[in-house]
Amino acid sequence: MVPRGFCLWLTGLPSAGKTTVSHELAPRLRARGWTVELLDGDEVRRGLSADLGFDRAAREQHARRVTFVAKLLARNGVVPIVALISPYASSRAAARKEVGNFVEVYIRTPLEVCEQRDVKGLYRKARAGEIHEFTGVDDPYEAPTDAEIIVDTTRMSPGESADYVLLELERLGWLESLPSTLPTRSSRAVTHK
Amino acid sequence: MVPRGFCLWLTGLPSAGKTTVSHELAPRLRARGWTVELLDGDEVRRGLSADLGFDRAAREQHARRVTFVAKLLARNGVVPIVALISPYASSRAAARKEVGNFVEVYIRTPLEVCEQRDVKGLYRKARAGEIHEFTGVDDPYEAPTDAEIIVDTTRMSPGESADYVLLELERLGWLESLPSTLPTRSSRAVTHK
Repeated sequence: MVPRGFCLWLTGLPSAGKTTVSHELAPRLRARGWTVELLDGDEVRRGLSADLGFDRAAREQHARRVTFVAKLLARNGVVPIVALISPYASSRAAARKEVGNFVEVYIRTPLEVCEQRDVKGLYRKARAGEIHEFTGVDDPYEAPTDAEIIVDTTRMSPGESADYVLLELERLGWLESLPSTLPTRSSRAVTHK
Repeated sequence: MVPRGFCLWLTGLPSAGKTTVSHELAPRLRARGWTVELLDGDEVRRGLSADLGFDRAAREQHARRVTFVAKLLARNGVVPIVALISPYASSRAAARKEVGNFVEVYIRTPLEVCEQRDVKGLYRKARAGEIHEFTGVDDPYEAPTDAEIIVDTTRMSPGESADYVLLELERLGWLESLPSTLPTRSSRAVTHK
């Protein structure tokens, strides 16, 4: 039997920090012996959905394809980390159902903060009306109500956020805890905050 | 480091035996310690390409998506077995290039035999003009010229075909040979025929 992986599904507004946190998560999970695959918005779009735009139907279609890939990876022992705005609750619920071993991680960064960061300069363009259907500006983001893990990136650095996700994964039983290791500075800061 | 998997890409006419052989291959590769994922036409179509038809552009698009998934699996140590007509040499060449660890397996069953088998009754429908763009009837199949492995299903049973593929994978260096095991009846039949 292949050891069953699980899917970490990071949802949040543009510039919330999904990609950044996923890049901090990957090496930590690998250090715990897991094989990890990042399914990040842009690369996955090119590979699976070069044909799609950003209207609701297209986003749903894309989320279904990502879900399929995440399912295949997870059932073969890999931990896919999906970093996808995935603004619709229905898409996330469908992913949860199809993948099975599913952990929803809400990267809960307030819109104002995301817009200040504006990593790709897209909020500015959306506000200027140069692009449309931009989540948070003229397209809705349905905030999760049943995420297993909520990360507040305004109170934690990317590394601390990843440490926190790992602690939560231990608490939820997806990861074994490491009793022989003393808590690190950052994990103490998180648990005691 | 994750041990690198490799992709077995089975190409051939409809009813050539791609699915049948892939189902014989999977348990044999698992017995060798590999994690195997079958990427078979119909299930993968539903998961990735429910939006696509069967014209050339659609088939190419679908092959690109399957390629992306096979690449992700192979680089995470899984052996994806793709069973896809994949009638165009350009699609197969693109898959070979993108996946990297790529073994093309040509399930070379003559059209007459495939049409006699007609597993899904589709040759009959295509000949009757009820369906169109059917590979081998009114859509081309560009036979591979650089397949690493060629399987003649008119001379071997499905199980023998799978044994033969494994022997070839050993010869090509993708699998370790099993020197401690005496050749089985079927593998002897293949090597000595």
